[in-house]
Amino acid sequence: MTQTLNVALGARTYPIHIGSGLLSDAGLILPSLKQKRAVVVTNTTVAPLYLDVLRATLEVGGVDVLPVVLPDGEQFKTWETLNLIFDALLGANCERSTPLIALGGGVIGDMGGFAAACYQRGMPFIQVPTTLLAQVDSSVGGKTAINHPLGKNMIGAFYQPKLVVADLATLDTLPDRELRAGVAEVIKYGLIRDPEFFDWIEANIDRLLAREKDALAYAVARSCANKAEVVAADERESGERALLNLGHTFGHAIETGLGYGNWLHGEAVAAGTVIAAELSVRLGWLAAGTLHRIERIFDHAGLPVIAPRLGTARYMDLMSHDKKVQDGKLRLVLLKQLGQAVVSDVADESMIGAAIDARCT
Amino acid sequence: MTQTLNVALGARTYPIHIGSGLLSDAGLILPSLKQKRAVVVTNTTVAPLYLDVLRATLEVGGVDVLPVVLPDGEQFKTWETLNLIFDALLGANCERSTPLIALGGGVIGDMGGFAAACYQRGMPFIQVPTTLLAQVDSSVGGKTAINHPLGKNMIGAFYQPKLVVADLATLDTLPDRELRAGVAEVIKYGLIRDPEFFDWIEANIDRLLAREKDALAYAVARSCANKAEVVAADERESGERALLNLGHTFGHAIETGLGYGNWLHGEAVAAGTVIAAELSVRLGWLAAGTLHRIERIFDHAGLPVIAPRLGTARYMDLMSHDKKVQDGKLRLVLLKQLGQAVVSDVADESMIGAAIDARCT
Repeated sequence: MTQTLNVALGARTYPIHIGSGLLSDAGLILPSLKQKRAVVVTNTTVAPLYLDVLRATLEVGGVDVLPVVLPDGEQFKTWETLNLIFDALLGANCERSTPLIALGGGVIGDMGGFAAACYQRGMPFIQVPTTLLAQVDSSVGGKTAINHPLGKNMIGAFYQPKLVVADLATLDTLPDRELRAGVAEVIKYGLIRDPEFFDWIEANIDRLLAREKDALAYAVARSCANKAEVVAADERESGERALLNLGHTFGHAIETGLGYGNWLHGEAVAAGTVIAAELSVRLGWLAAGTLHRIERIFDHAGLPVIAPRLGTARYMDLMSHDKKVQDGKLRLVLLKQLGQAVVSDVADESMIGAAIDARCT
Repeated sequence: MTQTLNVALGARTYPIHIGSGLLSDAGLILPSLKQKRAVVVTNTTVAPLYLDVLRATLEVGGVDVLPVVLPDGEQFKTWETLNLIFDALLGANCERSTPLIALGGGVIGDMGGFAAACYQRGMPFIQVPTTLLAQVDSSVGGKTAINHPLGKNMIGAFYQPKLVVADLATLDTLPDRELRAGVAEVIKYGLIRDPEFFDWIEANIDRLLAREKDALAYAVARSCANKAEVVAADERESGERALLNLGHTFGHAIETGLGYGNWLHGEAVAAGTVIAAELSVRLGWLAAGTLHRIERIFDHAGLPVIAPRLGTARYMDLMSHDKKVQDGKLRLVLLKQLGQAVVSDVADESMIGAAIDARCT
């Protein structure tokens, strides 16, 4: 069964299709291709698994595929790798109207999307996420970016896809560690705005980790529904959308501080969320019992709940590049209670430092 | 006297201020700065002339300036130079709300604008053009880009400024060759949509070249009025806006083919426009007499009317990357008559080649 949700953005509204075997469903992707050619940006891990399936589907409709196969990993989310896409596009005389399809996880989606945003100032873009993290979060909402040595996702664009196709069957080949990293973002939706979903995750975490199809389908669809609502209300993150970054300010510091590619994004978000929850308890907002529930669910999902000891000063320095900094003041996503997040600058540096200290190895 | 025009883009409508001495007019720029700090992107030629003037104006209003001084020339409109801006922004902890001011010609405006579009997915951007070409054309309308070795302006974004401040006094220090290059784009507006303006240019070309203030003020304002109308009607170049590219498909081929920075953009556009006009005559659209008027005005302005002999095959190859190519077919901006341009794919390759041949050294 295929579920379809919409991201409501006026003339740029687009569908998210969720189901099993969708890579072979020519009727989903082909109608949105206006050319007899499409670029597929993917990586060396995903290409052997799914490039031929997608290519066969497109070729049935008379669409030739130009594959661009990149190295795999967050450490390659750089300008150098992005330039490999531009070289391929120009080398093959791709046009402004040639569609670019990102087939892969968050890194491929972010880089493919940013390349599509910039090539000839914008070409049509389609997301085909193949990791849980990309299906529940990064493929939806139009955030694209590459990393800079000084900060994650610092260079990018808001650029919405025409279409998102989440084939749940691709999760069959996902390494366990990647699956767990995706669960971190699923849990996030429960924490920031959907407490009933959090209860459901607690009750169904073992089914998710066992990759039961109906559990995965439910988790992906409910996550996307949450994301779509937030993005429709605040596409360019002038308000509510920032709440989706719970745990991300600390998490990005962990990823950048350890060197991109050491911790997975979802792992860093899990440990970062525990710090944010710890700080929320120290502010008197969150009950200690809720913090324990949060720790327990991440731990149960096999995700880190203790952050690496980079040193408080280093954390503060890394976080000074955060996109939510305003007038020199760090603003963090914190929890008022389970299911209610806020962006706040009330915590001072010493308080933030103490929360980090308490939750580091 | 300061003239103010608006680029009407709904909530993103912005003013173009045109006048002499505006760099010292704190009341124009300061109200649009929401921070106590602004980045000024400029180059090694413009910085010694105008950076201190602008800095003094901003500092009066309590705004600190972070200058980013780049090397000067089209050959530096590359990712490497763009990265120098990102390094400076991150090194100084610039925020998403920190404004970026481009102080310089077309290259600085294009690169500064693209950096502003991408840094943290978009920071406020202000254009302060200091060349005639930038004042009459590139600073208005939100096209930003860098070059790729295979094609000019291939990587970029549509990203509108909050404000354009064209200080005519900065034209006093403009080298003659740069002034003439700017005149090419002024002539363009006459050719594509404003035949009365073309008549005025013919009558006043010597006053323009002598830098008479009232003639320059009139030419800048009327050019901007034309550009603002076109951009307001077709921001993302799905139709009419492409007409602004008269002579540019041939011109970009010349710039890329000779190596960026050898011919100035305006020079390449002049020679390219003559080829487009030649082709328009061969199609039976344009009168031979009009072609002669076009040649004569460019020649009078000291602009090249004969293109470099790169070879027809090389021209065709270079032009195959043009952003107007659709379904493998080259589309060119041609002239039906003086003041009326069209985008057309009727000319076949041999006809285009013959027109190039006829207008090459």
